[in-house]
Amino acid sequence: MVDGPDAPVRVAVVGTGLIGGSVLLRLHAAGLDVTGWDPDEATRRQARSAGVPTAERMVDAVAGRDVVFLGGPLPTLPATLVEVAAATGEHCLLTDVGSTKAELASFALARGLTHRFVPGHPMAGTDRAGLGAAVPELFAGAAWVLCPAPAGLAAFRRLAALVTEVFAARVVPMAADRHDAVVALASHVPHLLAGALAGAAERSPLRDAVLTLAAGSFRDGSRVAGTPPQRTANMLRGNRDEVLAALAGVTAFLDELAGALRAGDADALTARYAEAGAARAALAGRSYHEQLRSFPAGGRATDEVAWLCGVGAAGGHLSGCRVDADGVAYIAHLPHPG
Amino acid sequence: MVDGPDAPVRVAVVGTGLIGGSVLLRLHAAGLDVTGWDPDEATRRQARSAGVPTAERMVDAVAGRDVVFLGGPLPTLPATLVEVAAATGEHCLLTDVGSTKAELASFALARGLTHRFVPGHPMAGTDRAGLGAAVPELFAGAAWVLCPAPAGLAAFRRLAALVTEVFAARVVPMAADRHDAVVALASHVPHLLAGALAGAAERSPLRDAVLTLAAGSFRDGSRVAGTPPQRTANMLRGNRDEVLAALAGVTAFLDELAGALRAGDADALTARYAEAGAARAALAGRSYHEQLRSFPAGGRATDEVAWLCGVGAAGGHLSGCRVDADGVAYIAHLPHPG
Repeated sequence: MVDGPDAPVRVAVVGTGLIGGSVLLRLHAAGLDVTGWDPDEATRRQARSAGVPTAERMVDAVAGRDVVFLGGPLPTLPATLVEVAAATGEHCLLTDVGSTKAELASFALARGLTHRFVPGHPMAGTDRAGLGAAVPELFAGAAWVLCPAPAGLAAFRRLAALVTEVFAARVVPMAADRHDAVVALASHVPHLLAGALAGAAERSPLRDAVLTLAAGSFRDGSRVAGTPPQRTANMLRGNRDEVLAALAGVTAFLDELAGALRAGDADALTARYAEAGAARAALAGRSYHEQLRSFPAGGRATDEVAWLCGVGAAGGHLSGCRVDADGVAYIAHLPHPG
Repeated sequence: MVDGPDAPVRVAVVGTGLIGGSVLLRLHAAGLDVTGWDPDEATRRQARSAGVPTAERMVDAVAGRDVVFLGGPLPTLPATLVEVAAATGEHCLLTDVGSTKAELASFALARGLTHRFVPGHPMAGTDRAGLGAAVPELFAGAAWVLCPAPAGLAAFRRLAALVTEVFAARVVPMAADRHDAVVALASHVPHLLAGALAGAAERSPLRDAVLTLAAGSFRDGSRVAGTPPQRTANMLRGNRDEVLAALAGVTAFLDELAGALRAGDADALTARYAEAGAARAALAGRSYHEQLRSFPAGGRATDEVAWLCGVGAAGGHLSGCRVDADGVAYIAHLPHPG
């Protein structure tokens, strides 16, 4: 239910790099009324020459819009949120596409924006950057975290509908702090490991031969070390404490593997790899069952938020959200245990 | 120059799992006279039903052959080498496809087999196992290490010709101990990192949500943790000291990254990622120049071995080898510096 009964939804995207740009391209391809803006003049020119509607000033891009997606480098998002909130009406929903959520969620709370700002994180990307790397289908089938809160539940519902319908993404409802703990392990620590692997190879006296014999394991394991350094550094710094905590879990497991290897303990080594392999098997072979769930209009917001967060914690996601005068109906997909 | 002047080369493959099986399938597809054998009766039956020539007994597979490829689990290779050597004539070349080389090279030296055994390591694979996962094109374009030694230079030349011609692989000449140090970083440590990442996720209280939000970085970084555990354990144990030494280099870099993150030092973090990114750029964008090099018949074997090992150390490879009465001619490809 993207469109209201009277008028189609009008959208803006502020910050049109890889992620914001892909959001913009998809909204445009879907036929929505959308305008983009980026602080970088060359990016705006690039968008215009690609035939994508782009404003010259941020205020012109967001004026009169119903939904604004906030992109751009992570450290810039608080300031962008304040500026766009000031340039838009109270009815206008705001969401961001940053890779960490707790800090911005707290910031929005302090600024009294929770009723119309929904922290978001589309889990897709490439190791390239900028609008030139953006593609409209980037989010199809990808996880897209949206953080529900009782005060912003109406905004959450409208965004969940938009993201499932227009982007064909799997909406994962999750509290902001939980999100940050999860992505620390699901995304940020892998960037640390990739950096350490590629960095050690770069420094090795055997570098040239190592690159020649780089097996699939090395290529895959170091891939995200090719991401623009500044972007990776911003991402890690934006989630520092959670990343360091998750890293401790990974290095503890690594110590067990190395200890078993050092001791020549084949059984222990095999057992640890069997344990690790279980995660891979779950990743490859997960099956889901569908659950339809409705909440009546005027029901308790905390009940709905609790159910939504339970879906995310269980490894589930939403594929649809319909809002009408009677309330809201979600289509959820929950993994079978295992 | 695979075939001699009189008769086509006759080949056998002993141990026809993923790697040996792919060798067998490629030799068969190339029209060579090849017979396979595996100690597992079901594997032999599977090969027969696929129309691949397979003997019921190892001695029948290798009798009268010019070249035998030795496959199977790493710990079984010394015994296989001894058995196949006893069942074949002095003219018969032997090579293996195991993932570590120094131990088997020393074993062959002690058994007086250096003149006809060339340690080998085709650097290709999948996270599946067995003949059912084997494909004939597995090695096309892949690095295939062969270890040259003065006493086994004639054998090395013939194998280099066979591997470049039939498998379209890039032959990387490298001493056995150097190979093990290189693959420790290029393949084995990535398996440790992948195991640690997947294992930590499996143990995490956030496991289900982590798997749902698993980004490309997590999927790629943990991929080889899905490899059969026993195989990974064998591989690591077969190269223990080199793996632990290479791991120390990686954890040192990881400590630097974590230290910069903990200190909130954005410049240091970005600088480390720029360093890591240089290895990725070199991996993606290497260019090579071709070098033709001949060695006359009766020349000094140590000169030829030194040149060959220099090609491997520089990150180069061979794409051809021609032997005739005048000597040997190699086509080498050497990376441009950078």
